[in-house]
Amino acid sequence: MTHNEAFAVVAKPGDNLVDLSTPRPIIDEDRLAANIARIQSYMDAHHLNFRPHIKTHKIPALARAQAAAGAKGINCQKITEAEVFASAGFEDILITFNILGTEKLARLAALHERISALKVVADSAVTVDGLAAHFAARKPLTVLVECDTGGGRCGVQTPAEAAALAERIAKVPSLVFGGLLTYPKPGGAADVQRFATETLALLRSVGIDCPVVSNGGTPSLFDAHLVTAATEHRAGTYIYNDRSMVRAGHCTEDDCAMHVLATVVSRPTADRAVIDAGSKALTSDLLGFSDFGTIAGYPQAVITGLSEEHGVIDLSRCTGKRPEIGEKIRIIPNHTCVVSNLFDTMVFHRNGVVTRVEEVAARGLVW
Amino acid sequence: MTHNEAFAVVAKPGDNLVDLSTPRPIIDEDRLAANIARIQSYMDAHHLNFRPHIKTHKIPALARAQAAAGAKGINCQKITEAEVFASAGFEDILITFNILGTEKLARLAALHERISALKVVADSAVTVDGLAAHFAARKPLTVLVECDTGGGRCGVQTPAEAAALAERIAKVPSLVFGGLLTYPKPGGAADVQRFATETLALLRSVGIDCPVVSNGGTPSLFDAHLVTAATEHRAGTYIYNDRSMVRAGHCTEDDCAMHVLATVVSRPTADRAVIDAGSKALTSDLLGFSDFGTIAGYPQAVITGLSEEHGVIDLSRCTGKRPEIGEKIRIIPNHTCVVSNLFDTMVFHRNGVVTRVEEVAARGLVW
Repeated sequence: MTHNEAFAVVAKPGDNLVDLSTPRPIIDEDRLAANIARIQSYMDAHHLNFRPHIKTHKIPALARAQAAAGAKGINCQKITEAEVFASAGFEDILITFNILGTEKLARLAALHERISALKVVADSAVTVDGLAAHFAARKPLTVLVECDTGGGRCGVQTPAEAAALAERIAKVPSLVFGGLLTYPKPGGAADVQRFATETLALLRSVGIDCPVVSNGGTPSLFDAHLVTAATEHRAGTYIYNDRSMVRAGHCTEDDCAMHVLATVVSRPTADRAVIDAGSKALTSDLLGFSDFGTIAGYPQAVITGLSEEHGVIDLSRCTGKRPEIGEKIRIIPNHTCVVSNLFDTMVFHRNGVVTRVEEVAARGLVW
Repeated sequence: MTHNEAFAVVAKPGDNLVDLSTPRPIIDEDRLAANIARIQSYMDAHHLNFRPHIKTHKIPALARAQAAAGAKGINCQKITEAEVFASAGFEDILITFNILGTEKLARLAALHERISALKVVADSAVTVDGLAAHFAARKPLTVLVECDTGGGRCGVQTPAEAAALAERIAKVPSLVFGGLLTYPKPGGAADVQRFATETLALLRSVGIDCPVVSNGGTPSLFDAHLVTAATEHRAGTYIYNDRSMVRAGHCTEDDCAMHVLATVVSRPTADRAVIDAGSKALTSDLLGFSDFGTIAGYPQAVITGLSEEHGVIDLSRCTGKRPEIGEKIRIIPNHTCVVSNLFDTMVFHRNGVVTRVEEVAARGLVW
């Protein structure tokens, strides 16, 4: 790690962005603060608890800013991410992943001893039974039932299955049923409301209290108030925003706090530029796009292909100026969360001047 | 970095693969050794110098194994990668990237003082002039001219441009013209041969010696001998191989040394499995495929989608057994190089028993 640590000094406060070596993701402090404030205001206005997902930034200082604005707890995806945030002082951590296997369950149990409000999810009896065997009645673990309301990933498929799994959890002395949770499809508010309402009725009929209904996602975040059954909302991407969130209508390009700085390293032909940002900087996430980001100031330029260290840009539709060799450009990436995962440090700026450099403390933690 | 360092102990020699926590890429020692030997034998048989590209493994111990087999020098893509390998004792390092900008040129000059045979490429007068200003006649830097022979990325477009840039390099006391280099399109042997032959004739006509013609790539590696003008070949992916190399006809699935171990964490429906390997483990590189890897033992299962921590598998075409919750599966990734870049450590095994764990020393180095 010694070599990588040397790169923690990629910039220092007061540096000008134009002097940074590329490729380098940068975060606009004012847009960041505005994104945090705007979404927390919306949640406050609709009396929804807000639980930010740290996957987008992976930086404790940003989670503290979200908490200071009014967020209640955080959402992690993996045990190892939760360990990083527990070490940074967070007590209310929800891990939205089915945790299986002896080693992981043992680590989860150790984490549970360290913090006051750890919660996980389950969508099967196998997961519930594994959890049941690794926790104790003196400090039971809170488990929410994950529901597939149309997202097509994990989750029980019907309210009847959800209620049955809740009953299974509620019967185990070492576990506490913590509620329902879903990661819906974009625009799926009505499906979430219907699934939650039906499940809540089933739970009432068997006398099981459901303290939390946790909804999630940034793309349709401003529909969160339509799900009146929900008590909390989880979202991550909103803090930086990206090209896919602009397309989803969640924000505008001016709300995108992250850009990836890159340098034009070759202009082999009049219509082709090659930059030093490839899939190791932008990732190959397309998310339905056919190209790899929006270039500020060059709306007609198209990033048509990425190899690991090169991005190839088609300039043939550019009617005005074209970027020259050595020129630095700014790219709004398709997907911001995955860019965070590629860099050990993140550079923040205000009006082009570096304000701070944060370690991406939970980078690369996959289990 | 403290937290990530804890994960260096992901496994130890003698551990059984079935006990490893997932997701986790693993390398088969016997396939690795066979891949190194097979390609070096081919190069030896055709009297081609072989310069492995370290981008695939990013591990000095593997580059030493390649050198022990007969490789001459290594290929890096970025200065920071070259620094890691220089620190590991490598002296003959070719960086196949246009290096621009004061900070990078200063670091390149510092690296040049440390090793005996640093080489870089250039495809424009801007790059050549930048290099010229940062090196000295007492220890000139060797610069190869990068040629676009159909690959469509960097490189001068014609033999005339190549010869003109070679002349520009040859005139500068602080630089030495080192030869021609190309990263061709797959199946592009005839184009490389034609471009090189024409350029060599032009160089002869102006009295410039061309000591090296460097060809590259794994997909069409076994065509390397058709390019009789070439003196060396560069390749990276061959050492691990991957699904895209199987499709290209370079190898079979039995030559793929890397698998990604993953665990089924959810079976929401009869036709859907969800695994704990998403884009943070497999990457979203499609390379022309419409799905995200081949699952050993489940040829009819299709990894249809990835989010960061989840892979969604369509089982609807499976006529036999279907993977169950908790089951560990092995995936041949679409692209092996990008998987290496996501993990701090790489686990090696023989017949399912861990042999060693290597630090991926040059992981995440993007400039």
